[in-house]
Amino acid sequence: MNDYINHINKDFESRVRLGIMSVLMVSDPVSFTVLKESLHLTDGNLASHLRALEEAGYLRVEKQFVGRKPNTVYQATLAGTEAFRNHLNALEQLVLNTKSN
Amino acid sequence: MNDYINHINKDFESRVRLGIMSVLMVSDPVSFTVLKESLHLTDGNLASHLRALEEAGYLRVEKQFVGRKPNTVYQATLAGTEAFRNHLNALEQLVLNTKSN
Repeated sequence: MNDYINHINKDFESRVRLGIMSVLMVSDPVSFTVLKESLHLTDGNLASHLRALEEAGYLRVEKQFVGRKPNTVYQATLAGTEAFRNHLNALEQLVLNTKSN
Repeated sequence: MNDYINHINKDFESRVRLGIMSVLMVSDPVSFTVLKESLHLTDGNLASHLRALEEAGYLRVEKQFVGRKPNTVYQATLAGTEAFRNHLNALEQLVLNTKSN
């Protein structure tokens, strides 16, 4: 029964990372401010999880300018999108198997 | 969009805890050995997560004897069952919202 448990990705375990990836899958690219406000996080907490996901190769960071104001945006990479889809599939299996029993 | 994120329970975030609770929801009570073998975990890793779930009030531990051999079994509490159901519902929402976009 527990094969799907092994497809749950440790990099996405935390609620904050689930939230970040979920926002990036839906609307992409997303600014730091939008992520922060959607997920009700502090700067420090959000920044540390974004850094971890960037280091894992699951998102890329881009510095843009809005007028003369710098604006950092985040975008899921192809690897991130695929890994997160696999993670969601594993969670879906977990939910289905657990609920149906 | 992110209200369900707040219903994801930090106590169940880790893959190991998802696995433990999922096994307990399906077959209950369960021995240490069965949990260990179903989830492919080391004794130490499993024991530490079981202790955390017990401290949170989500499972109860019972020492039984099989013949003269001691056998420790684990059972989800009502609070654990309810909290885990809420967690699964939140994950289900996350999966549905992310996949449908």
